[in-house]
Amino acid sequence: MDSAFVEGFLDPASVALVGVPRATGTGAFNVLENLLRFGYRGKVFPVNPKIGSILGFTAYPNVKALPEVPDLAVVAVGRERVLEVVKDCAEKGIKRAVVVTQGFADADDRGSELQDELTQLAEASGLRIVGPNTLGVVNHFAPFSTSFVDVPRDKDPWPVSVICQSGIFHAGPEGFTGKIGKGIDIGNACDVGFTECLEYFAKDPQTRVIAIHMEGIRGGRRFLQVASRVSKEKPVLVLKTGRSDVGSKMALSHTGSMVGEYQVYKAAFKKAGLLDVEDPEELMDAVKALLFLPPMEGNRLGLISFTGAGAIMMADACEAYGMEMAEIPPEELGPIQSLAPEWFKVSNPVDIWPPIMWGGYERAMDTALRLLLGRKDVDGVVFISAALGSPLHADLDPEGRLKNRPFKETKPITVWLYGDDFEGVAERLERNAGVMVYPSATRAVRALSILTRYHTLRERKRVPLGEIPVVEGERRVLMGGEALELLEKYGIPVAPSRMVKGEEEALDAASGLGYPLVLKLVSPEALHKTEVGGVALNIRDAHGLIEAVREMKGRAVKRGLFIEGFLLQPMVEGVELISGIKRDPQFGPVITFGLGGIYTEVWKDFTLGIAPLDENEAREMIDGLRGKAILEGVRGGPSVDKASVVRMLLALSNLAMEVPQIQELDINPIMGSEKGCMAVDCRVIMG
Amino acid sequence: MDSAFVEGFLDPASVALVGVPRATGTGAFNVLENLLRFGYRGKVFPVNPKIGSILGFTAYPNVKALPEVPDLAVVAVGRERVLEVVKDCAEKGIKRAVVVTQGFADADDRGSELQDELTQLAEASGLRIVGPNTLGVVNHFAPFSTSFVDVPRDKDPWPVSVICQSGIFHAGPEGFTGKIGKGIDIGNACDVGFTECLEYFAKDPQTRVIAIHMEGIRGGRRFLQVASRVSKEKPVLVLKTGRSDVGSKMALSHTGSMVGEYQVYKAAFKKAGLLDVEDPEELMDAVKALLFLPPMEGNRLGLISFTGAGAIMMADACEAYGMEMAEIPPEELGPIQSLAPEWFKVSNPVDIWPPIMWGGYERAMDTALRLLLGRKDVDGVVFISAALGSPLHADLDPEGRLKNRPFKETKPITVWLYGDDFEGVAERLERNAGVMVYPSATRAVRALSILTRYHTLRERKRVPLGEIPVVEGERRVLMGGEALELLEKYGIPVAPSRMVKGEEEALDAASGLGYPLVLKLVSPEALHKTEVGGVALNIRDAHGLIEAVREMKGRAVKRGLFIEGFLLQPMVEGVELISGIKRDPQFGPVITFGLGGIYTEVWKDFTLGIAPLDENEAREMIDGLRGKAILEGVRGGPSVDKASVVRMLLALSNLAMEVPQIQELDINPIMGSEKGCMAVDCRVIMG
Repeated sequence: MDSAFVEGFLDPASVALVGVPRATGTGAFNVLENLLRFGYRGKVFPVNPKIGSILGFTAYPNVKALPEVPDLAVVAVGRERVLEVVKDCAEKGIKRAVVVTQGFADADDRGSELQDELTQLAEASGLRIVGPNTLGVVNHFAPFSTSFVDVPRDKDPWPVSVICQSGIFHAGPEGFTGKIGKGIDIGNACDVGFTECLEYFAKDPQTRVIAIHMEGIRGGRRFLQVASRVSKEKPVLVLKTGRSDVGSKMALSHTGSMVGEYQVYKAAFKKAGLLDVEDPEELMDAVKALLFLPPMEGNRLGLISFTGAGAIMMADACEAYGMEMAEIPPEELGPIQSLAPEWFKVSNPVDIWPPIMWGGYERAMDTALRLLLGRKDVDGVVFISAALGSPLHADLDPEGRLKNRPFKETKPITVWLYGDDFEGVAERLERNAGVMVYPSATRAVRALSILTRYHTLRERKRVPLGEIPVVEGERRVLMGGEALELLEKYGIPVAPSRMVKGEEEALDAASGLGYPLVLKLVSPEALHKTEVGGVALNIRDAHGLIEAVREMKGRAVKRGLFIEGFLLQPMVEGVELISGIKRDPQFGPVITFGLGGIYTEVWKDFTLGIAPLDENEAREMIDGLRGKAILEGVRGGPSVDKASVVRMLLALSNLAMEVPQIQELDINPIMGSEKGCMAVDCRVIMG
Repeated sequence: MDSAFVEGFLDPASVALVGVPRATGTGAFNVLENLLRFGYRGKVFPVNPKIGSILGFTAYPNVKALPEVPDLAVVAVGRERVLEVVKDCAEKGIKRAVVVTQGFADADDRGSELQDELTQLAEASGLRIVGPNTLGVVNHFAPFSTSFVDVPRDKDPWPVSVICQSGIFHAGPEGFTGKIGKGIDIGNACDVGFTECLEYFAKDPQTRVIAIHMEGIRGGRRFLQVASRVSKEKPVLVLKTGRSDVGSKMALSHTGSMVGEYQVYKAAFKKAGLLDVEDPEELMDAVKALLFLPPMEGNRLGLISFTGAGAIMMADACEAYGMEMAEIPPEELGPIQSLAPEWFKVSNPVDIWPPIMWGGYERAMDTALRLLLGRKDVDGVVFISAALGSPLHADLDPEGRLKNRPFKETKPITVWLYGDDFEGVAERLERNAGVMVYPSATRAVRALSILTRYHTLRERKRVPLGEIPVVEGERRVLMGGEALELLEKYGIPVAPSRMVKGEEEALDAASGLGYPLVLKLVSPEALHKTEVGGVALNIRDAHGLIEAVREMKGRAVKRGLFIEGFLLQPMVEGVELISGIKRDPQFGPVITFGLGGIYTEVWKDFTLGIAPLDENEAREMIDGLRGKAILEGVRGGPSVDKASVVRMLLALSNLAMEVPQIQELDINPIMGSEKGCMAVDCRVIMG
């Protein structure tokens, strides 16, 4: 959709309201009435066969009877009539529809069918649909709104645009995003989706920050491609909800079973340079910081506090959000120190209460601000301030001091404000002093951490996502030698191995491989070999080998397992690792990496990356492990050559991109040591 | 301090203000002026030799010149003059002082000396001191305040009392605890501390909830004894700040090195039944819920939502705070289902938007409330509601519906409110409908989770903390056999072991113990034996044993280690665990438990309990491990008899209580299996 086309949704010159209710006033949810209250200045055509006119407007019996072709139709009729109405719209030549009606894919099977038909109709006719199951669009600049809830127009909107899947983000703006400018609730997204809206807002001059509320997405890969580009130009925030049903969406295979859906989303957002946030509160806090504060490159904070207790809470918050308190040598704090009594030792956080008591508020504040803001090792400042309403404290005037500070355009300041005049002081500080105010240490620090994150993500090199051909193939499982061969072909070192059927073949193979050896059962019915006695370690000689084959065969027969054969490999020492590929239906191939061994499931310590990976991303996957110290060698134990892990992850990424038939691939274990890493066993599901 | 005595601090009939400034008005920080504005009705005696009178009050040159003995003296003079003034107060017969002055233990060495002298003066004279370095006390009921910051009196205070270490909790009440009733800022706590204040508020009829802000405590054990009792009667919330310097306070020994101070505090709070909160925001949210909502026993929530998106966020929040959404069979939701269109399937969370559209707001809400609140498997309800200011939505009246709900006195409701009329609707709901309002899903769910936590903690059996004699002893380290003997004496099974000096003794010992064996170096200089090659596993025969002793001796000599001897033990199979005792300077003996092996330091998976433990607490220490699945046997690996671990922890707890000389004790490893658990090596520091 080009920009002009989208503007027909957000700022139409004329609009048909199909299914407008007869009733007006309290309880009517009348979109026409709301639209007029919102201040819309375009042409309106109510459509309802049962009324002649409404609120002074002529009502039309149906879309075909309209005197002209409006830019947009807002459809709110029973779900069974929606298709017919949209068809009429298309035939009339209308190019855009917002389908408000519920009861589609959000409801039952019949609803899903109806929605599919709506999608087909959009594709066939070229009429573009926002919805169904939506509050539609809102534009506080225009003004225009399709809302059946009467939300007052904001005449001083912020240049922040929202793409969401719920009207709650339109109806509750102050609680979620601050003062919203434009919003598109894509609802069930039968046609217009996140990607097109994102492309529009990227170019929209009235949008400086984009906020997304996402429950789920279709065409995630394409979205990432667009988002990777847009996030270089404007900050894009994402609030992903629906994380807790992770468990129910667990996949079957081993590494797959640990890949919660939300973690895939998080990896995808990171790859595309999007800023994911935890909840609506963080979304709102971030919007404000990104809109109104100068950018911040580093994470080193200068802190000015009125209170020792507050400074301590601030330090706790810094640790929680990965921010550092700049370490300032005492001798460089002289100008502030000289305002305080001798017994008081100034440091960062700077407690300016004693300097205020001894040297007065104005001097103390000006000195502290000038000193901290002027330092190269301070990227931003958090100021803890009381907002006292009493006239007795009129001299404690943060607004006055902050307004005239130096480095106003280059160093951001957030204020943790408390006290009986919070509202008043907060409003003045934000409006007049160019700082953003938050009601807690945590939120003031977190807001600045968002700026640092944005800088880092924006600067990151974007790995082009490439195209992944759509292939169809029969489901097929590769195990043991066959799977290892595939890895070898893509440059992943694999342990030498021989597939054998029985004792004689085993003895023969052993002489080639050399003792000590490992013997493994190969059976599609035995996923976890150790559980069925399907692994014999440290076989030292021919005698031991024959015994091991016999016993393993016996156990397998006893359990009624189909025996494809036995895999014979030399013992490989090192740290057990696992890695693999999981094809995500939305985002494409996902590379997994984690610690192996029997504790894999206990610690669930793994990381994800969306293919294709670059070196930087592969390295982050290693460093992102909670237990990464194990790779560095614990207590004299073996360490792992990280470069070889990086090479393996990049090779897996290549494999995932070039062989789209792979649905799942699990290397388990990989033995890692100082000499490199080596795949010992592997299982691949093609499909 | 008895109640009447404390009331002399919080509601004195007369007060001397020593060091009252000459200046009044803006910038003066004049406590007299503030006190008058606050509405104090008692007698006031300003003391300042340089002024004759102030604000119409006669000023006295010094304390001795006062015409009568006031109930309280507020001292705000330079730190060097404080002692002299307090001495004067004591001589005059004054029984209570608030020392506002900074620059004591909060500052330099000289300050610490002065504070010690202040403590001694209090002890010797019987005059009790709050402070120094404090804003003092505030009592919105009385009214009385010693604050040098002019905080307006709240004429409708809540029955919540605050014990804190910073005036920020008095000066910013609305942001931290809601509407505070009484507060004592104990500051540096040279004399009056947390324990005495807690004892007072426990009995105070104007206090229903107690909120503590704690930076650190002296006499922690005594505090826990009192808190254990008080928390049975009133909810006690604790916000512990200063958590992030945990690292710098790491202890030296192995398990000790992982015991961050904050974790000891958390364990102590739990033992005493205190509700610890993360930040001031949670403190405020909890105060409101505990004051104004009925208690809640279980964690099963009924959810009523206006919006699908909101319900999803609510589910995320439930998972985050350990709450469950009650699972209601569809057939039992009939009354609500019948109000909705057929395609809409009602479940919990109940999305009442379709029922509202089809059946009207009043019927939908009343039905949903009656149904959910009436269920035995619903302990509380969270309601997501829009607060819409438009007259067109006057029919959406949550206040009207919630006011007349059934089960009002027994089932708590929190409301996640959003929309343009947040403030107005929130205020009416809280005042008239007996529900508490929060601005997010997270906070609405968390508030109810606090009620459940309170119920659980209150019902817990309190283990009497007992008395721990103060002992002095020489520092002495017990290792190997000597340490294991001590464990055995207290009923902890230990691996059979023999201490040997050389090869011959080893052979002799081996014949008694039986092969396979383990050989370990015993040297006070080798804390981590594996790192110096001081452990030889799986020695199968005499030949192997001689070789092992020779080699180990060689390695030790090469490293220049002092060899006390070698410990010989049978190989014990099982899961490696660690456990120990650490004597905390505040809370006394702390029992530690965790997973052992070389990954102990990687995962830092351990739990703590304050001795003496009961069975319940010991079991919680096991279940609290993130990796507890390992004890249950992973993938066919060995499992551990939990009852034997519980017995071991209780035995350690006894040992800790009965041998107060133990400063640190580390059992590493303990081998756990189905047959029980067994200490294999141990090190004790007595002192």
